[in-house]
Amino acid sequence: MSEAILQGIFDLPGKQAACQVAPNTRLIDAAERAGVVLNVACGAHGACGGCAVDLLEGRFAHLDGEPLPLDGKARRVLGCQVVVEAGPFRIRVPRHSLVSADEKVVVDFDHLPAWRLAPAIDKIHLALARPSLLDQLGDIERITAVLAEHGYGPAIEVSLPVLREAPPACRLGGYEVTATLAREDGRCFLTRIEGGDTTARLFGLAVDIGTTTVVCSLVDLRSGRIVQTASSYNQQVSRCNDVASRISYAATPEKLEELRRLVVEATINRLIGLVIARQGISTDDIAAVSLAGNTVMMHLFLGVDPTHLGGVPFQPASNLPGPFAAAELGLAVHPAARVELAPATAAYVGGDITADMVVANFATTDELTLLVDIGTNAEIIVGNRNRMIAAAAPAGPAFEGQGLSCGVRASAGAIDSLRINSDTFDCQYTLIDGADPVGLCGSAMIDFLAQAYLSGLVNSAGRLDIDKLRARCPQRLTTLTTHHGRQTAAYVIVPAEQTDDGIRPILMSEADIAALLQAKGVIFAAIQIAMKHLGHKFSDLKRVILAGGFARHIDLDSAVTMGMLPDIPRERYRFIGNGSLAGSYLRLVDRSVSATMAHLAERPEVIELNLDPEFQDAYSCAMFLPNVEAGLFPSVAAR
Amino acid sequence: MSEAILQGIFDLPGKQAACQVAPNTRLIDAAERAGVVLNVACGAHGACGGCAVDLLEGRFAHLDGEPLPLDGKARRVLGCQVVVEAGPFRIRVPRHSLVSADEKVVVDFDHLPAWRLAPAIDKIHLALARPSLLDQLGDIERITAVLAEHGYGPAIEVSLPVLREAPPACRLGGYEVTATLAREDGRCFLTRIEGGDTTARLFGLAVDIGTTTVVCSLVDLRSGRIVQTASSYNQQVSRCNDVASRISYAATPEKLEELRRLVVEATINRLIGLVIARQGISTDDIAAVSLAGNTVMMHLFLGVDPTHLGGVPFQPASNLPGPFAAAELGLAVHPAARVELAPATAAYVGGDITADMVVANFATTDELTLLVDIGTNAEIIVGNRNRMIAAAAPAGPAFEGQGLSCGVRASAGAIDSLRINSDTFDCQYTLIDGADPVGLCGSAMIDFLAQAYLSGLVNSAGRLDIDKLRARCPQRLTTLTTHHGRQTAAYVIVPAEQTDDGIRPILMSEADIAALLQAKGVIFAAIQIAMKHLGHKFSDLKRVILAGGFARHIDLDSAVTMGMLPDIPRERYRFIGNGSLAGSYLRLVDRSVSATMAHLAERPEVIELNLDPEFQDAYSCAMFLPNVEAGLFPSVAAR
Repeated sequence: MSEAILQGIFDLPGKQAACQVAPNTRLIDAAERAGVVLNVACGAHGACGGCAVDLLEGRFAHLDGEPLPLDGKARRVLGCQVVVEAGPFRIRVPRHSLVSADEKVVVDFDHLPAWRLAPAIDKIHLALARPSLLDQLGDIERITAVLAEHGYGPAIEVSLPVLREAPPACRLGGYEVTATLAREDGRCFLTRIEGGDTTARLFGLAVDIGTTTVVCSLVDLRSGRIVQTASSYNQQVSRCNDVASRISYAATPEKLEELRRLVVEATINRLIGLVIARQGISTDDIAAVSLAGNTVMMHLFLGVDPTHLGGVPFQPASNLPGPFAAAELGLAVHPAARVELAPATAAYVGGDITADMVVANFATTDELTLLVDIGTNAEIIVGNRNRMIAAAAPAGPAFEGQGLSCGVRASAGAIDSLRINSDTFDCQYTLIDGADPVGLCGSAMIDFLAQAYLSGLVNSAGRLDIDKLRARCPQRLTTLTTHHGRQTAAYVIVPAEQTDDGIRPILMSEADIAALLQAKGVIFAAIQIAMKHLGHKFSDLKRVILAGGFARHIDLDSAVTMGMLPDIPRERYRFIGNGSLAGSYLRLVDRSVSATMAHLAERPEVIELNLDPEFQDAYSCAMFLPNVEAGLFPSVAAR
Repeated sequence: MSEAILQGIFDLPGKQAACQVAPNTRLIDAAERAGVVLNVACGAHGACGGCAVDLLEGRFAHLDGEPLPLDGKARRVLGCQVVVEAGPFRIRVPRHSLVSADEKVVVDFDHLPAWRLAPAIDKIHLALARPSLLDQLGDIERITAVLAEHGYGPAIEVSLPVLREAPPACRLGGYEVTATLAREDGRCFLTRIEGGDTTARLFGLAVDIGTTTVVCSLVDLRSGRIVQTASSYNQQVSRCNDVASRISYAATPEKLEELRRLVVEATINRLIGLVIARQGISTDDIAAVSLAGNTVMMHLFLGVDPTHLGGVPFQPASNLPGPFAAAELGLAVHPAARVELAPATAAYVGGDITADMVVANFATTDELTLLVDIGTNAEIIVGNRNRMIAAAAPAGPAFEGQGLSCGVRASAGAIDSLRINSDTFDCQYTLIDGADPVGLCGSAMIDFLAQAYLSGLVNSAGRLDIDKLRARCPQRLTTLTTHHGRQTAAYVIVPAEQTDDGIRPILMSEADIAALLQAKGVIFAAIQIAMKHLGHKFSDLKRVILAGGFARHIDLDSAVTMGMLPDIPRERYRFIGNGSLAGSYLRLVDRSVSATMAHLAERPEVIELNLDPEFQDAYSCAMFLPNVEAGLFPSVAAR
């Protein structure tokens, strides 16, 4: 019998959460009631797998009414497709279905350029004269007069939310208040008034708005340290994957607003909720926000029509938007907090790349440097402080796992490296966080291409040697049907019974390989063309800086072997991790970075790959392993 | 039989409006469906009479179900208390039940100080270079670069709404755009981008936020002329009448927000809707807003807690709030329009008085000047450019018609002057707009007190000579029961059958007289105490400036005779009308007025009447006609 209210328990890694729901509640909604945020990316349409959970106890049914008997053992389902019919119920949530609030390495502090702890915002504790009938100065004027004595000004700008909080704050602290101030390009903003002395508590938020993934880091501006980080899919992914389709989707004001809310409210504000809960602070305690993302993401974040980014001449509404007050943007931080966006160079060389350039120290270096940021797309900067060439390579989200049979983000359960035995074609792999395998992240895909090529499992064109595979290791050969109904041969990396869901094998199909060759081919060809414009050979490069979400797991030798990156001495390579986040972080802790960003964003000469007559040729050659022009990869040829 | 949909017609002065409603719709809701805005002030509780309408045709019932048969003749009812049961129906709306969109004299242009047409906002038409693959400057940077060539800057601030409108505007006009710019204290704001050349169209809005009445004037900033004006009750009146009760009401954040919405959305935005419809422009065409009001009204308008204005030491959150962007405030004008508030001197000497002081030219005059602004309360400024004394007199809203048996605002149908024959005690009156009489406005109340005193109808203490009245003019004597159940004698000014509603006589009771004597007594005593602080006698005054909504109808001789204003040569008096609106208007058309206001707001020394030992005595004397100290009114004594 159904009860009016069902008691439910969610088992999470290391803790539990409880809820009460009515019968026939969807599991993702029940999870939300329990305060559990599942990492859904498809708009809860059963497509992304981000809400996979294990049913342990209770009576459940599919949305279409089909019963889902447990028969005494756990059953994995998608939480968006299943309702609970009777309780009490118990559900296990695997780590990879949770929005990640425990990213371990997001900013590589070892490779940051020199900086000093000097945020644009500061707090000051003030003892105000108490008002009397002979001193009826307004609360705000009372505060700004004392601030002027402390050297703030000449004008101090006060916005409505601060005006509103002044009267209670003044009385709460018996006319002892703490003022938060933001200095910005000669201007001075009073952004918060609190009662009493709260000078020890001052936080900022650094945000990387990726096309696929959004990362928020909470920064303690007293110590300069990142104290909390959380990441999730950019919820816009539920509407469309890549930037081009998002530009198309946003063609009406309603859809534009929908995408804006998906990234601001459904993604960033949710992540803010996670980091402040963990830190034990309130949204109002976040006094400044520094964001970076590509130009399309910034337009959508701001609710600005991106249409004209989508066609020649690729025109942004602005490359230097803001700063803004948080309330204007709907961000769940203090409404008067100043929000800065990393400035962009051009439509497809966005603020995320400017942030990378800060971290890669383009502002001061004389060394010829190649920066490659591989996210959903790949952007290239090559040059030094005197001259910089920029190119955008539309690689697509393959390395982030999108569109591949078994691709996943680099999170718990992801296979992040693998080796193929060239004699047996057998395979060994390592996993992130030692969880049961859920799929391949970008670094493992690169390993696969390199290892499969070196072992002879695939040829230069990316085709599996099916005969050899069947002969040496038949259990790793399978066939699957693509979305388009085509049969494609595939190599099984993890058999079904060893995977996290126990149902589907983790594999790499010829269709997957083709998608990866396209992606890496675009990147390599873009680097070639950019180098040509600068008039330099690969061997002239003094530094190659790799930025982007998956670069921290990448095996450099694999990436060169499969022909994505130049074949130069490996010690010239550096990994900076999420440069977009790191640059945003630097801007929060060191106010001089704002000027550096503004300077760097203006510098690069942007080349349009499609207008370069040599690009198509270079791309065609680069879609082979490692490249049709074998001379470009001497160390690979030598093997 | 009720039909599913009832057809209805509203007869308005000079036009008709139609609607379709379901049976049992309240008449005020039906009116709203027809686009007719009734001037309700009580929250539709049947208390204010602002929705009085005449039922002409149809079947109607009181809210409690009691039928209201028409018996072939028109029947006056309150639209908030009556539903329509069957149609088709026809309803006549008298002029005084409509929100007024036709105020005739709101700014007395003859008495404005010297000004020049130099608004803080301007429009400039720009021909932009078209973008190309070789010129991918963002739309905004493309615009600001050209603006810099025209001398705008150095920094040009661009807010989110402008960023959002830039891409479509640039394409609409083929890269010919019109930029609206606001200069403000060294800063420069880009507040609008339109496609094409719209330089001929530039509007601002001047707003007087009174405790009882709100007036909005649309100003054509190309000509400097007021082109539309509309006024209505401040809808906060529906919750409570005076400033003290509004401070109490706003004690919780929810009630504060309720009062904010009542003045912003239910009052100002509705008036904006009226003026733009009449002018044939859109809300976005209003590029700047200049407001003035008393300090409590400004706090409520901003949604800032006014609690501390309500008790010693009468502390405002700010005397100099803003400027703000319109979007922050929820005003229905262009979201990036700059909104300036007249700065205040102190809790009870608000921005409305600063605006008066601009119009009265306190900034430059050497002449000893008395300014009296009689609105819901009365504020006094006395002095010249060298020294100014300010006092706030809590006179209450009696002269605005609140709390009197037959008081009304100075609008169509109001009796605005009257004479009493000292032999017959008979009465003659004049009406605003020649409509049928609906009540007495403030100027007629003052006439009544002066005439009744001079004729002997009332004595110095404000009591009717009932014996004489019964003997000479018995039809003008009546008795009515006050709200408190007390019997009070009354003088009938208009018999019931001659009034607009044909039901209730227009009269003045002894209770009404007592209320008016209190009000005028506070004002006169406040003037006396302020003069004493400055060390001057009444005869030293070179100018007396009368400001406020009803001053334009006032008979000066009556106002002196009944003891409200000093008995000095009448030619020293000036009327400036609605100085709060006029000052706001001047600030819109002449940007130098902003600095003048900031200067003037800081100057007055505020005296607290209740702390002055002589105030109570002066007040007690001033509650008689004209005053216990007859020597203060030599010209009255001479009669």
